[in-house]
Amino acid sequence: MTGDRKQLRPIWLDQEKDIVKVIDQRKLPHELVIMNLNSVDDVIAAIRDMVVRGAPLIGVTGAYGVFIAVANSPKAMEDGYVKQAAERLISARPTAVNLAWAVNRTLNNVLSEHNLSARRQTARLTAGQIAEEEVENSKNIGRFGLELIREKAQLKNRTKTEGPVNILTHCNAGSLACIELGTATAPIYAAHESGIHVHVWVDETRPLNQGSRLTAWELGRYGVPHTVITDNAGGHLMQHGMVDMVIVGTDRSTYTGDVANKIGTYLKALAAKDNNIPFYVALPSSTFDWTIKDGISGIPIELRDPDEVRYIPGAVRSMDNLLMPKDSPAANYAFDVTPARLVTAFITERGICEATEDDIKRLFPEMVHQT
Amino acid sequence: MTGDRKQLRPIWLDQEKDIVKVIDQRKLPHELVIMNLNSVDDVIAAIRDMVVRGAPLIGVTGAYGVFIAVANSPKAMEDGYVKQAAERLISARPTAVNLAWAVNRTLNNVLSEHNLSARRQTARLTAGQIAEEEVENSKNIGRFGLELIREKAQLKNRTKTEGPVNILTHCNAGSLACIELGTATAPIYAAHESGIHVHVWVDETRPLNQGSRLTAWELGRYGVPHTVITDNAGGHLMQHGMVDMVIVGTDRSTYTGDVANKIGTYLKALAAKDNNIPFYVALPSSTFDWTIKDGISGIPIELRDPDEVRYIPGAVRSMDNLLMPKDSPAANYAFDVTPARLVTAFITERGICEATEDDIKRLFPEMVHQT
Repeated sequence: MTGDRKQLRPIWLDQEKDIVKVIDQRKLPHELVIMNLNSVDDVIAAIRDMVVRGAPLIGVTGAYGVFIAVANSPKAMEDGYVKQAAERLISARPTAVNLAWAVNRTLNNVLSEHNLSARRQTARLTAGQIAEEEVENSKNIGRFGLELIREKAQLKNRTKTEGPVNILTHCNAGSLACIELGTATAPIYAAHESGIHVHVWVDETRPLNQGSRLTAWELGRYGVPHTVITDNAGGHLMQHGMVDMVIVGTDRSTYTGDVANKIGTYLKALAAKDNNIPFYVALPSSTFDWTIKDGISGIPIELRDPDEVRYIPGAVRSMDNLLMPKDSPAANYAFDVTPARLVTAFITERGICEATEDDIKRLFPEMVHQT
Repeated sequence: MTGDRKQLRPIWLDQEKDIVKVIDQRKLPHELVIMNLNSVDDVIAAIRDMVVRGAPLIGVTGAYGVFIAVANSPKAMEDGYVKQAAERLISARPTAVNLAWAVNRTLNNVLSEHNLSARRQTARLTAGQIAEEEVENSKNIGRFGLELIREKAQLKNRTKTEGPVNILTHCNAGSLACIELGTATAPIYAAHESGIHVHVWVDETRPLNQGSRLTAWELGRYGVPHTVITDNAGGHLMQHGMVDMVIVGTDRSTYTGDVANKIGTYLKALAAKDNNIPFYVALPSSTFDWTIKDGISGIPIELRDPDEVRYIPGAVRSMDNLLMPKDSPAANYAFDVTPARLVTAFITERGICEATEDDIKRLFPEMVHQT
């Protein structure tokens, strides 16, 4: 992490000590705590407990997990050990496809090296390369998404509609979910920097409040005007012309255009459709799943600890912090799937495409053989 | 309040001391605190600060406010004073139409009496009568709604579908929002008592958590199986066949079938429609607004203190309890409007009707002249 506000990354390798460091996102927005990841178990716990979260960041963290597996173990030359470490990393969370993608890519590079220092160096370089690629992806997503916001701003200007371009987002698909700039937020930052008047409606995103804790924090830090709302409010805002577009990220999208994202995204997509508001999904190609055709039946949806719903986010789990009767059960589905028919377009590092198999494959022709 | 669990009411008149008592619903579920309302200002504060809430209960509380105005003031014979007290009561909250309805009914009865004891007695009787009518309304709503649940249970039985009838509800339209039995919950209690296996998905209902605090509490107290979920989760459950029907209450519904209810209701109605799940609205006729044709443009939506979003519900407003960055603004729209086209049917004290002007007027022909 450098002093430059624009360069705050949620994960980095301390080059001198070869230690992987992450921001503990559970402590934001009130504390900026840095945590060292020293073992594969540390990495798994960090992913599972959401010290780090967001599809691209989980991928990069998993890749660094493979690096840690070979850097810090005497068994680094045993392929079985490395493969098992990779499998355990992939199992840390089920929904984001980037995790398996980045871990497997790093694993394959590692296994192709046959001496210890080469394995370590390859793992270090691959993880670093994936991180830099995601930065590049975010920049390009920002560049393409900017044009969508600019068009809306120009339309408002032509029709003499007062006020900023109002963008609603759900969860955090910001720089904290990626490496820099984010996915959903990249076009917003690009628009803000190019002088377009934008305002972001930030869904709180229960139960872990990634919107009110993380997105609000990073937008505030970058000086982007925003307002936090409950997850319930978006439909009302859309009915009353207070939302010009929705931009969200995704944890896994099928090659047919179905979008798994933080629970509640589907409800916002329905409201956008009902009010004729564009609903965009911003993602790097690492978030596409080229093997699943039907997202609703095919994408595994993580069921997390109900206590995340029952207790105040981040608080000690005592009666004082219990949000409901002590004997009432709760359920905690972490993601939902928005069907392709509700998605106006994808914003990818290669440009904009419709949420259809044909148009996705047009943009990523090299993946056709994988589906 | 008696020892009989079924008789726990959120408001009652202490007959001996002529004091209006309410449950302080802000303290639930962890504390059952009873509060005395001694002045019109007390009543206004109780309604505004949501010591009491829910359309039928706000109405009854407003009626008792008129009683308190004449019972506890030397100006009880001054019509101007009584009218002004009524106006102030009506202004305490803008969205629920029951408040104006019940206050005006009590006011008119009071103004027709020309001696002090008759005024007081009339106010006392009218408020009590409105309360008993709402109990009767809830019983009838339960009776009619029970048949809808029974049909669903029979269908599940015929098609050998395992499990309970799963009903999703938003906010609290329970006995705590009414006098007894509730509106949305009345059919659920009736089904539970008649031995039908029901299970309720309880939306948390941010920002004030009426679902997780109040609905879960009263369902638990009556022994009805339930699970608390975040407001984000309902769409996912509906996509996966885990919701058989939605039943909600309403704070004001137009005679054309548009439904104002707690913010977020519209999102659930969209998801129900998208998944072909019936979406029912349970209400007594006192909640119909016979003067507004278009709910989205016509029903006033209360904008409440943003700090209700920013801080942990019920907690002291200190940095420790702040859910977001201290410099991030928040907005707090309290209700939204679900258009009639998304409502499968109304469950009223006179029976079931479609959410159309014709069918509503068929059930309430005496109101035709008011529209």
